[in-house]
Amino acid sequence: MKRGVKESKKTHSNQTIRFKNAPVIISGYSIAGKKESEGPMGGNFHHIMKDEYFGEKTHEAAEQKMFEYAVRGAIKNAGLQPTDVEIMLSGDLLNQITSSSYAARSFDMLFVGLYGACSTMALGLAVGACMVNAGYFDTLVTSAGSHFATAERQYRTPLELGNQKPPVAQWTVTGVGASVIASKGDGPKITAATFGKVRDWGTRDPNNMGAAMAPAAASTIIAHFRDTGTTPDDYCQIFTGDLGKLGESVLRDLLASEGYPVGANYTDCGRMIYDHAQHSFMGGSGCGCSAVIFNGFILDKFKKGEYKKILLVGTGALLSPTASFQGNTIPAIAHAVVVEK
Amino acid sequence: MKRGVKESKKTHSNQTIRFKNAPVIISGYSIAGKKESEGPMGGNFHHIMKDEYFGEKTHEAAEQKMFEYAVRGAIKNAGLQPTDVEIMLSGDLLNQITSSSYAARSFDMLFVGLYGACSTMALGLAVGACMVNAGYFDTLVTSAGSHFATAERQYRTPLELGNQKPPVAQWTVTGVGASVIASKGDGPKITAATFGKVRDWGTRDPNNMGAAMAPAAASTIIAHFRDTGTTPDDYCQIFTGDLGKLGESVLRDLLASEGYPVGANYTDCGRMIYDHAQHSFMGGSGCGCSAVIFNGFILDKFKKGEYKKILLVGTGALLSPTASFQGNTIPAIAHAVVVEK
Repeated sequence: MKRGVKESKKTHSNQTIRFKNAPVIISGYSIAGKKESEGPMGGNFHHIMKDEYFGEKTHEAAEQKMFEYAVRGAIKNAGLQPTDVEIMLSGDLLNQITSSSYAARSFDMLFVGLYGACSTMALGLAVGACMVNAGYFDTLVTSAGSHFATAERQYRTPLELGNQKPPVAQWTVTGVGASVIASKGDGPKITAATFGKVRDWGTRDPNNMGAAMAPAAASTIIAHFRDTGTTPDDYCQIFTGDLGKLGESVLRDLLASEGYPVGANYTDCGRMIYDHAQHSFMGGSGCGCSAVIFNGFILDKFKKGEYKKILLVGTGALLSPTASFQGNTIPAIAHAVVVEK
Repeated sequence: MKRGVKESKKTHSNQTIRFKNAPVIISGYSIAGKKESEGPMGGNFHHIMKDEYFGEKTHEAAEQKMFEYAVRGAIKNAGLQPTDVEIMLSGDLLNQITSSSYAARSFDMLFVGLYGACSTMALGLAVGACMVNAGYFDTLVTSAGSHFATAERQYRTPLELGNQKPPVAQWTVTGVGASVIASKGDGPKITAATFGKVRDWGTRDPNNMGAAMAPAAASTIIAHFRDTGTTPDDYCQIFTGDLGKLGESVLRDLLASEGYPVGANYTDCGRMIYDHAQHSFMGGSGCGCSAVIFNGFILDKFKKGEYKKILLVGTGALLSPTASFQGNTIPAIAHAVVVEK
């Protein structure tokens, strides 16, 4: 049972699994809020909500509806019916991942709930690729998302209080992304997945998640380069999601100090989603941030032939308000997938 | 992409995946509280905590420590070191599955967070078996658990209030179970897994989770029998975890009405864990309930040669306090694994 005994037969090298029957992302769908539509990524969303209630009575109900909408949209974009899709892998930030679970009621699919905080889109793509590559399922959908107002209610203070955010804070993205992964079809393929380890360097400020997550991102990215023998230059673009501006700069330092300096071909989804004039502090966060950028902007670039190979590194801060109130530090994790034409 | 196009090559039939290289459960470990130790399952736990704080300052910290303890215990029982184990799949009931994530900091393993409410042990065994069967990992650990006091704080009212529970309530088990799954070794094997669909029959009472979960259990069990061509008589024992007495009786009715009557070889972990004199209302609940019974009582029965083949059906109510306060009904899910000698 020693690590490495079956190394020659194994499809993974330490943290990374390479997919022999590389699953195809046959479609994606992104739905986002008004603020997000006004940012640099706005032109790539499939649907923009007129307001944050999306026709529902509560923000939580709106978030559930966004999940339903995104999952249906991705399936429709694949030219399929919901009954063609076997299983839904999904997660979100709300307690007991209710947005995903409640949305799953609308579909007659198997359901597996995942939790990776803001890393959930990458986690879903990684687990989904494992399932399809192994032949367990032919077609599945994976989704992740968040809503600014539900996240504020749960993690911070009621919006009505009008609390000020500190400069290091990030802004939770209102948006849900969904991808359909299949054993064959047209689209970019998931050729490898690097699962992450939980990393905790002692950050205690729940308003500064970029600093908490950067070490986890560095750990997974370095493991990925080591396992696959690649360097940053092998990727058209490397995306983290979502460290924000501060976390991105910490990650650049960490990677450089480990011998993997990254240049212009690295960026962070949290930095990309809002422009400077939008008062979003360090940038976007929330499961929705990398989910809508991946299923909007990134898949679009593949369609246009502008990307050949990217590394998507989802990053999640695994805190809860109770954990923070009790004085705990913030553990974080990052999961990565290689997507290539 | 139509369902069934590749049926002949597929390793699953609708909801059920059969494992050709059936992964082995090489060890298990269960840690539980004092109350649980005084019930009928008490003799099968590997460790019993003297008090509910387990040497920590908060119940939440105690729950994290229980996870660490159970994971270390299962690995030790397998004759391995933590560094021999590649990945930890884990989940719990606390917001943002913090008990699992915080415990994962102690191990240099990959980590995937799962959420299936009280179905999490079965979900972890199912996903873990998928990963090992496919050759992605040789050795992994999966864990699930709960703590009475942390669950009360989160889902209900502060313990200090001394609120009365209604007769249909269940009692959250204080306990964590962990299993080590490997590609080879001694122990019972996971030969099939049936993933569940989210089912919601309109139950709104968060104190009556048995009624909410019974339809999901019936859905998965019937799918399992249909997919595998088995009947209840093919199993030494079928366990649900955890419907409680009321949910168990609803499930018996539902199964009988669908042509799968179950007799004495069906029982519920929630019913098993406490005896009548322990004032636990409808019985146990929480991720810990089926986790400690599986990793204690059930694995012990396999070791003694008393079980040849069982079906473990984890059942989870996917509610949250916010969802209930907003008047939502309670969706539920059930995931099942076949474990056999």
